[in-house]
Amino acid sequence: MKKSLGSLPALFPMPVLMVAAYDENGKVNVMNAAWGTICDMDKIALIIDDAHKTTQNIRKIKAFTVSLADKEHIAEADFFGIASGNKMADKFERTGMHASKSAVVNAPIIDEFPVVMECELAEIVETANLFAVIGKIVNVSADEKVLSENGKVDPLKINALIFDQFQHGYYVAGSQVGQAWNAGKALMQK
Amino acid sequence: MKKSLGSLPALFPMPVLMVAAYDENGKVNVMNAAWGTICDMDKIALIIDDAHKTTQNIRKIKAFTVSLADKEHIAEADFFGIASGNKMADKFERTGMHASKSAVVNAPIIDEFPVVMECELAEIVETANLFAVIGKIVNVSADEKVLSENGKVDPLKINALIFDQFQHGYYVAGSQVGQAWNAGKALMQK
Repeated sequence: MKKSLGSLPALFPMPVLMVAAYDENGKVNVMNAAWGTICDMDKIALIIDDAHKTTQNIRKIKAFTVSLADKEHIAEADFFGIASGNKMADKFERTGMHASKSAVVNAPIIDEFPVVMECELAEIVETANLFAVIGKIVNVSADEKVLSENGKVDPLKINALIFDQFQHGYYVAGSQVGQAWNAGKALMQK
Repeated sequence: MKKSLGSLPALFPMPVLMVAAYDENGKVNVMNAAWGTICDMDKIALIIDDAHKTTQNIRKIKAFTVSLADKEHIAEADFFGIASGNKMADKFERTGMHASKSAVVNAPIIDEFPVVMECELAEIVETANLFAVIGKIVNVSADEKVLSENGKVDPLKINALIFDQFQHGYYVAGSQVGQAWNAGKALMQK
């Protein structure tokens, strides 16, 4: 028997996405977003309020990057979620982090985060129930040290933060428990 | 110096969502979706192809549930992603899982999964870059055993699966490493 908890955003795990863009003067701003998903093999959808400094920057510059926040930079990542770029002029500088311009889009890559999606603005979707910034993922860049021998990103090496909206905790991934399109194979043959 | 990996859906972590709906005859179908996000405090967006049996069921019945797949049911969860409800008439029955009708929406709750969002269809968004099924979360139901003493869901007790699209692994959450709106506080006072 299940217990009724009322209406809640009960999705777990959530990512901790670092969305970065330049303003019209080339100044970097970064925000923290947990509500986002891949929406095609080369597209990402971010559910971020239109009022954010970063959203306004994306509207103007039409490019942005999305990095995966890691455990090593939990203080900076969380700070990017507490502070507002509309109210704090030195928001990015205050962290002491470094940014360099992406080679493929007009947006800043935060050097310290291990994996980044470099995106062009594809569309801003506004409907009765959804406000979403859709990016086309032009390229992904990653630190060599987070790659497996096969050249792919190793999820245990990135130490990516996981957000828990039930109790507002940050977690990291524990052990691997299976492989997709394999764990359920026996039921196919049943 | 980062290495360029080309265009990839480089978001981690991703959830393992079990989307369930009735067809017009009251038959249960369930699918596995990793591309989904909360899009308001009481709304969820699922990026699922229109061709899926479940999408067609949602179009007809206008209600669905979204459960968090757990480690204990990894075989069933993965199977729901391999098998197609369009091709396999006994897809749900084959797993031996049990479903009961939600008390608040016309959709099946899979008894064995620990946490479920009970949703009414709010909108189907179709734009140049996005196909999304938006649900209004009417209620959340959870097994008593996955709740903390404060009555909220404990993310370590649910053992929710985490999908890694880099290498197609399933993971579970490891230890808590911080608290949101707290880990970055020192930088606010700097």
